Amino acid sequence: MKNALSELKKFRDEREWEQFHNPKDLAIAISIESGELLEEFLWRNHQDANIVNIKKELADVLAYSLLLADKYNLDPEEIILEKINENRLKYPVEKSRGTSKKYDQL
Amino acid sequence: MKNALSELKKFRDEREWEQFHNPKDLAIAISIESGELLEEFLWRNHQDANIVNIKKELADVLAYSLLLADKYNLDPEEIILEKINENRLKYPVEKSRGTSKKYDQL
Amino acid sequence: MKNALSELKKFRDEREWEQFHNPKDLAIAISIESGELLEEFLWRNHQDANIVNIKKELADVLAYSLLLADKYNLDPEEIILEKINENRLKYPVEKSRGTSKKYDQL
Amino acid sequence: MKNALSELKKFRDEREWEQFHNPKDLAIAISIESGELLEEFLWRNHQDANIVNIKKELADVLAYSLLLADKYNLDPEEIILEKINENRLKYPVEKSRGTSKKYDQL
Repeated sequence: MKNALSELKKFRDEREWEQFHNPKDLAIAISIESGELLEEFLWRNHQDANIVNIKKELADVLAYSLLLADKYNLDPEEIILEKINENRLKYPVEKSRGTSKKYDQL
Repeated sequence: MKNALSELKKFRDEREWEQFHNPKDLAIAISIESGELLEEFLWRNHQDANIVNIKKELADVLAYSLLLADKYNLDPEEIILEKINENRLKYPVEKSRGTSKKYDQL
Repeated sequence: MKNALSELKKFRDEREWEQFHNPKDLAIAISIESGELLEEFLWRNHQDANIVNIKKELADVLAYSLLLADKYNLDPEEIILEKINENRLKYPVEKSRGTSKKYDQL
Repeated sequence: MKNALSELKKFRDEREWEQFHNPKDLAIAISIESGELLEEFLWRNHQDANIVNIKKELADVLAYSLLLADKYNLDPEEIILEKINENRLKYPVEKSRGTSKKYDQL
């Protein structure tokens, strides 16, 4: 994702937008974009959702997520791998297999 | 991010969770996790936010985003780059420099 | 809802929380609570959702919505009625009957 | 809010939209609308937000919240008052005065 991040920052800096990109507003932006992504599925099954739009909205969620990670010098891949390790403890295979329950209800 | 995605799918499949991971619920999950990320900034400036928690919640947003992209065989990096290209047209440098206005108000 | 709003403000003021309740953070709070409400439906059909929890999360969404409306001296009932009037123009009965399409696609 | 709810249901039924309004999609709609509300505050202080738009988006959040409450025969005012009572226990005045900490960190 290094290429994507570098293009995102170039796009941002050409427009002098970093002044707006504090972490709080980036987190707000992620939330807004995730709402727009979700709107593609509103009132319908996923079979009837528009994949061209899904692609664009998902790209926006990812883009702001990379920019926020960058603000904290976090490597996106690394933090996912760390979180999987934590989740292994919260969701032991034996207890969580085949159920959608949250860890505090297992 | 190929390694992260492959670990996410392994984690999911060990728990037989793919049955729950239809695109609509994955989009819901992204939205929920983005709300949890945002909660780290609620009632406070970003300087007072807890970076350990931010890291975990951002990892969750990214994880579900990768899983949703995978459902549609989308490459995360590629869709970001495509979206940047579209945004170049919507946000020409001259018009959008230094302003946070949306493209339809430029 | 006058009674609910007055109790909400009393609860807030006893705790000296108005200092945190600027409109932007109230809007953030509404979004976070709506994510918590949505989590009750994640990975499941609504028949399997927990109504006790739904009731609590929906109350939180409503509570912050009333507090935000109050910040702008808006009457909740009145703004809903105004919005319905606008929506009558965007969604004429003949065109929108039985379809979940957005107004710009009718 | 009885008048608003009754107008919302009339608007819905004239368009035969109840078929789309299952509780899960109504919760999704609340979340999407709360994202649109939040967008009015993105990249800016609340002083620069557009109150005409805020009014409309807040009305949408409230409208879907009333419709979801109605699905479960919940009285909006009553569930807020019940939640305030619960919150009195989670947030005792002495411990929570002047702080924005969550109850599990007081």
